[in-house]
Amino acid sequence: MDNLKWDENGLIAVVVQDAESQTVLMVAWMNRKALQLTLEKSETHFWSRSRHALWHKGATSGNIQKVVAIHADCDADTLLIKVNPAGPACHTGETSCFYRPLEDILD
Amino acid sequence: MDNLKWDENGLIAVVVQDAESQTVLMVAWMNRKALQLTLEKSETHFWSRSRHALWHKGATSGNIQKVVAIHADCDADTLLIKVNPAGPACHTGETSCFYRPLEDILD
Repeated sequence: MDNLKWDENGLIAVVVQDAESQTVLMVAWMNRKALQLTLEKSETHFWSRSRHALWHKGATSGNIQKVVAIHADCDADTLLIKVNPAGPACHTGETSCFYRPLEDILD
Repeated sequence: MDNLKWDENGLIAVVVQDAESQTVLMVAWMNRKALQLTLEKSETHFWSRSRHALWHKGATSGNIQKVVAIHADCDADTLLIKVNPAGPACHTGETSCFYRPLEDILD
């Protein structure tokens, strides 16, 4: 895993995309342990920067994400994971976390 | 723009997706000025963390990215920009920066 560029906090950014619909579902972060678990279990695991804890996506909601493919970008500091999700990615119940047009947010 | 969550370096992560093919092209970073320019010109502008400079995507290569839509995620710390790209997103000539399967990178 040393060939990936982990940031100063030991994390790498991860884009999660629905393998079928191609919808971008969420962006989250992994540490080495989260990536290792993701590879072992073929379900996404992340590092929660707010809760400072490993996080098995869907462990409580049931909305796990089955891993279909993982790619790294050209400078190896970001991953793209294609998944088959069991349900919505967002804690709000939206399919994707990116449900808000920017103009609704900007003043 | 205060409704967006800029990190401790004044940056926000941006996922760039092809509006037609739905391919995830790249992940880059914006500061406020880069987002302002992106909104004004309807072409992506980023902040290069390595070169510490504003960067108009395609300014030298010609491979500009016309902005189609911008969404923020649920916690407003990441943007998803759908674009019509004039050419490859990656400096290697690949359409997407995410062209390397993870297994080719891991030892």
